[in-house]
Amino acid sequence: MPSPDRLLPADPATREVARELLGCVEELPIVSPHGHVAAAMIAENTNFANPADLLVTPDHYITRLLHANGSSLESLGVGGAGADPRGIWREFCSAWPIFDGTASGNWLAAEFSNVFQIDEIPSRDSADRLYEFIAARLAEPSFRPRALMEAFAIEVLATTDDPLDDLSAHLRLRQDATFQRRVIPTFRPDAYVNAHAVDFVSNVQRLVEVAGEGRGGYDGYLTALRNRRQHFIDAGATATDHGARTPLSLKLDSLEAARLFERVRLGECSEHDRDAFEAHMLYEMARMSVEDGLVMALHPGSLRNYHPDAYARFGPDTGHDIPIAVEFTSSLRALLADFGTTRGFHLVLFTLDETTFSRELAPLAGFYPSVYLGSPWWFLDAPDAMLRFRGAVTETTGFSRYGGFVDDTRAFCSIPARHNVARRVEAAFLSRMVAEHRISMPRAREIIVDVIDHAPRRAFKL
Amino acid sequence: MPSPDRLLPADPATREVARELLGCVEELPIVSPHGHVAAAMIAENTNFANPADLLVTPDHYITRLLHANGSSLESLGVGGAGADPRGIWREFCSAWPIFDGTASGNWLAAEFSNVFQIDEIPSRDSADRLYEFIAARLAEPSFRPRALMEAFAIEVLATTDDPLDDLSAHLRLRQDATFQRRVIPTFRPDAYVNAHAVDFVSNVQRLVEVAGEGRGGYDGYLTALRNRRQHFIDAGATATDHGARTPLSLKLDSLEAARLFERVRLGECSEHDRDAFEAHMLYEMARMSVEDGLVMALHPGSLRNYHPDAYARFGPDTGHDIPIAVEFTSSLRALLADFGTTRGFHLVLFTLDETTFSRELAPLAGFYPSVYLGSPWWFLDAPDAMLRFRGAVTETTGFSRYGGFVDDTRAFCSIPARHNVARRVEAAFLSRMVAEHRISMPRAREIIVDVIDHAPRRAFKL
Amino acid sequence: MPSPDRLLPADPATREVARELLGCVEELPIVSPHGHVAAAMIAENTNFANPADLLVTPDHYITRLLHANGSSLESLGVGGAGADPRGIWREFCSAWPIFDGTASGNWLAAEFSNVFQIDEIPSRDSADRLYEFIAARLAEPSFRPRALMEAFAIEVLATTDDPLDDLSAHLRLRQDATFQRRVIPTFRPDAYVNAHAVDFVSNVQRLVEVAGEGRGGYDGYLTALRNRRQHFIDAGATATDHGARTPLSLKLDSLEAARLFERVRLGECSEHDRDAFEAHMLYEMARMSVEDGLVMALHPGSLRNYHPDAYARFGPDTGHDIPIAVEFTSSLRALLADFGTTRGFHLVLFTLDETTFSRELAPLAGFYPSVYLGSPWWFLDAPDAMLRFRGAVTETTGFSRYGGFVDDTRAFCSIPARHNVARRVEAAFLSRMVAEHRISMPRAREIIVDVIDHAPRRAFKL
Repeated sequence: MPSPDRLLPADPATREVARELLGCVEELPIVSPHGHVAAAMIAENTNFANPADLLVTPDHYITRLLHANGSSLESLGVGGAGADPRGIWREFCSAWPIFDGTASGNWLAAEFSNVFQIDEIPSRDSADRLYEFIAARLAEPSFRPRALMEAFAIEVLATTDDPLDDLSAHLRLRQDATFQRRVIPTFRPDAYVNAHAVDFVSNVQRLVEVAGEGRGGYDGYLTALRNRRQHFIDAGATATDHGARTPLSLKLDSLEAARLFERVRLGECSEHDRDAFEAHMLYEMARMSVEDGLVMALHPGSLRNYHPDAYARFGPDTGHDIPIAVEFTSSLRALLADFGTTRGFHLVLFTLDETTFSRELAPLAGFYPSVYLGSPWWFLDAPDAMLRFRGAVTETTGFSRYGGFVDDTRAFCSIPARHNVARRVEAAFLSRMVAEHRISMPRAREIIVDVIDHAPRRAFKL
Repeated sequence: MPSPDRLLPADPATREVARELLGCVEELPIVSPHGHVAAAMIAENTNFANPADLLVTPDHYITRLLHANGSSLESLGVGGAGADPRGIWREFCSAWPIFDGTASGNWLAAEFSNVFQIDEIPSRDSADRLYEFIAARLAEPSFRPRALMEAFAIEVLATTDDPLDDLSAHLRLRQDATFQRRVIPTFRPDAYVNAHAVDFVSNVQRLVEVAGEGRGGYDGYLTALRNRRQHFIDAGATATDHGARTPLSLKLDSLEAARLFERVRLGECSEHDRDAFEAHMLYEMARMSVEDGLVMALHPGSLRNYHPDAYARFGPDTGHDIPIAVEFTSSLRALLADFGTTRGFHLVLFTLDETTFSRELAPLAGFYPSVYLGSPWWFLDAPDAMLRFRGAVTETTGFSRYGGFVDDTRAFCSIPARHNVARRVEAAFLSRMVAEHRISMPRAREIIVDVIDHAPRRAFKL
Repeated sequence: MPSPDRLLPADPATREVARELLGCVEELPIVSPHGHVAAAMIAENTNFANPADLLVTPDHYITRLLHANGSSLESLGVGGAGADPRGIWREFCSAWPIFDGTASGNWLAAEFSNVFQIDEIPSRDSADRLYEFIAARLAEPSFRPRALMEAFAIEVLATTDDPLDDLSAHLRLRQDATFQRRVIPTFRPDAYVNAHAVDFVSNVQRLVEVAGEGRGGYDGYLTALRNRRQHFIDAGATATDHGARTPLSLKLDSLEAARLFERVRLGECSEHDRDAFEAHMLYEMARMSVEDGLVMALHPGSLRNYHPDAYARFGPDTGHDIPIAVEFTSSLRALLADFGTTRGFHLVLFTLDETTFSRELAPLAGFYPSVYLGSPWWFLDAPDAMLRFRGAVTETTGFSRYGGFVDDTRAFCSIPARHNVARRVEAAFLSRMVAEHRISMPRAREIIVDVIDHAPRRAFKL
């Protein structure tokens, strides 16, 4: 069983402080402002298919490391490959030791113990036994999505959705009087605003047809985006999410923008035109957020679908999006010049490039009331990385500019484990601050509640 | 009251070592080789106007975070806006919790406690009471600048000055037999050598008129710079300070340079010409330092006056200079090729980009006798950032290549707090080295005196 | 005498764990898959000339810091300058305190103590006495290279060699039945594939003449490279080593490549052509590794021979190779697209730019079975930097993607000290993981043996 002291500092007196601080937040409900669980799963509330389908295949944190250690993505069922779930499970259990020391290993151990009450260590030997055991639990009513959502104390769960999604699952959940939790959509327009996206042109065409109110060209395009944002707001959305390649923002006047849109739409454009259009649309999305109040979350700096062969065979989100260096300061200047001090506009900045923590993000969030610090994300949502984040930003921004932890996961059962790790890390960081007499204990108690509970509600308007 | 153990490591045995090391330096006089206090303030020695004017308004570390949390710069009196000091003070005290965990919060707590003997925590409730209390102290003779300079044990205080400043305040202080402390000017030529600076052309014209000895063109320009440097030396200066946008250096022959100067002066030049001229002038400033012995401090990598609206309304230095990535290695090659091994030439390199600590600065300072490591600066002059600096550079350079702590502040009363933090951080770092048997205790005692007291005197020729 | 606890964490309970983990590996034989000792030295097995020649002059870690502190490279005998060894030694001992806190100081202290049983601290006073003492030891048979290799328990030692080296020393050692240790060459083709290298054209001409089987042009060039790789394999090599300026890879078809080769060979090319050729050859070297099985080690990001004057007077490898920022993600895409999942292909990635640890290297090694994480290298092969490496990569990759420690040294007597430091650092890191309940003690015991002993054998096919 995972120790109640896991992730807390080794020094005994500091650990004592950390325990007390953890106690202030460990039982608080989960507020999850950004993730990738499907609303339909919760609306339909059917039992999970099997252990592999629940715990291995959809989690590209796990399949990627199995792949690095010799498994084929095919044998893991990635991208809909119809692999035998027992085979996948055996492969996973046999490779268990490679997860030691990883964020995923940590979450998995917590899931096994806390969700399934399993104390046996996965291995080639135990694989089949564990499979049977978990499969049996998954067949029980208490392991259906809604029951788990209760058990996990998830108060708010944001999903990530295509602008043309009808959001029927969300709407059903809102109308279901028996469902008391909050599941809200997030407007993710990448495929419609990133001019380099595969199928960008046909996506835009479809968007304008569906929601352009019969208008054509750039005007129809903006109208359609506004309409779909409103549809999301009506279904409970409070935020948009932007997986931009870069944070570059550019302000074009509407005539220029309209001309550029036409060139890009017709494919009669240079790479530079595409870049400019994306940068302009980032600016435009901020302007729409100022108008309609949706929080703008920005996740740049990942080179998506890096391995061509795996992308061709298994599709996107299969573990080979690789980070690149990112520049925020110059890139965001146009956007922040116009909206950085606009009351009610919230821009939450995420990075995969730790160098920007102290150099760019903390200085920006320490001046602009609109800018919130996104929590360490993806490869960085792990204890040591999160401590580096805190160490890098707090001395400039304090705690009030933090946007709250996001689990960003499609692995439903890992949600409590991820949030629990975040709580432990905050307790660990604050306990050091207290032990070094940098923050008083009464304030540390308030701060940990603020960063765990208030911060996501405040930044994401929940 | 701040704990005597603040910022020292939590492990009891290590803390014991840190206490002893701190004891070696805590009472040493302050040597401040770079800052922004006005010499006139000390020369005139008038009482400080009020608590807001002393502690809030001039400190853009503080006003920026208040701004991020919703205060307008106007309401804080920034840029000469005539706000009511009591209102500013109330706004500041009400927001006190946002400074928890920040470098500024740490310094402020120390100032309140050590300078004003206040133990009450600032808050909306205590604001007026604290205002009265501090205002009363500020009216006392013992709170005039010179008395505080004595009380703070500031032995040397360097200011930062415009090349055309007549330095009359400095000269008065030098001639005043009743004033025993050392206040020295620093030659800061940015506005006259950075071709992108606002008013560059008129600045240069004025410079040549005042100090060009009647010569024209590039020759008059260099002559004027040399003359003003000499004026600074005569007033006690030992250093120049360069807030260059980048550390790019370029060696042009004098004919080329003269032609480029004319183009830039007439505004008949490209952006690239301006960049080239700046880079050449950085090289030229190094050459002049070789000639006249002034230490050259280089602070690149800040995008100044980032927010156009705040700049237009409140002027420079109002909290929105934002760092960008910096490259030293290739950039400084021309300069170091010619002067990096020149005896007596000192180049102190500062960075806001932590990535350069281990990658570029330590390797350069570990080879070139002319290169000194500037202390972590601005957003990085905080305990965790300073420990990261030490952890990043020491294994390559040891301690001997360090240029000493600079407080870089216009907040006079924060000077002792800032230097005290630096002393605690060095004690904390060295105590870990001792506890891990990496440095002997006798050597650690010598090293802490060296880095706190000898390093700034050595690097800045004090 | 160095403490048995040096480099272990200060917290008593954590240190206890670290001691036990260190005990699992401290006595294991040394596997050194990358370094710069000359095979001839071991083949000839002659006594070392004198203390300066053994410990100071060939170690540019040491001469560079002496240079920064005022010594001339000439007075240290660098580059074959015929300085008096006693004078060099005195200069070194007098400057001993500057090495406090450095990686080199740490190794030197361990060498003095463990190799020479000296407890006296070097100083101006002790210099001559230490010189005599060490010189006397060096005259003993037990201080000849082979005896030391036994005493140091070096099981495998890889050298770094020019492709046209006849490897006669290696072949002699292989045929010497009295020599039981393994000394293997490494194919280092920089001078023949980096089109910017000094003498690139004449190097290539010589290569083709010697090993091109009479073929001309690009075909002869590739043939010659293949032949020399085979020669290395025949002499025991398992790896190639690439000190590329950047990790840029580019796939050209053979016609394009042949044309580019001609242009570069004739000097009728642009800088961009040279860059393209280098990038293509990196790709080509990977293709050859796929064919012949040699592990490919890549060490990019150093601006070599930075100081023109020192290079002109003292030659390469004299302490002024300075790191620059490096980009792996986009750069390696072409190479990894084709070979990243090829069974048997091993690419070990080293960096001097810590920013790539978490941002690029761990994500790449956590997906590609071909990619191994090179240990922190050069300016980063020091305790704190190594801990930062572990902290940055482990949460993404675990321990299984690690390529093992490389000492990368020409300082023969520092090899055990360097490997010992690596073992202590791994023990320190793992002890924290255990203390924080992130890894179980039984697994930590297995992991430390894996990273110290199995990792280099696995990654470098030893």
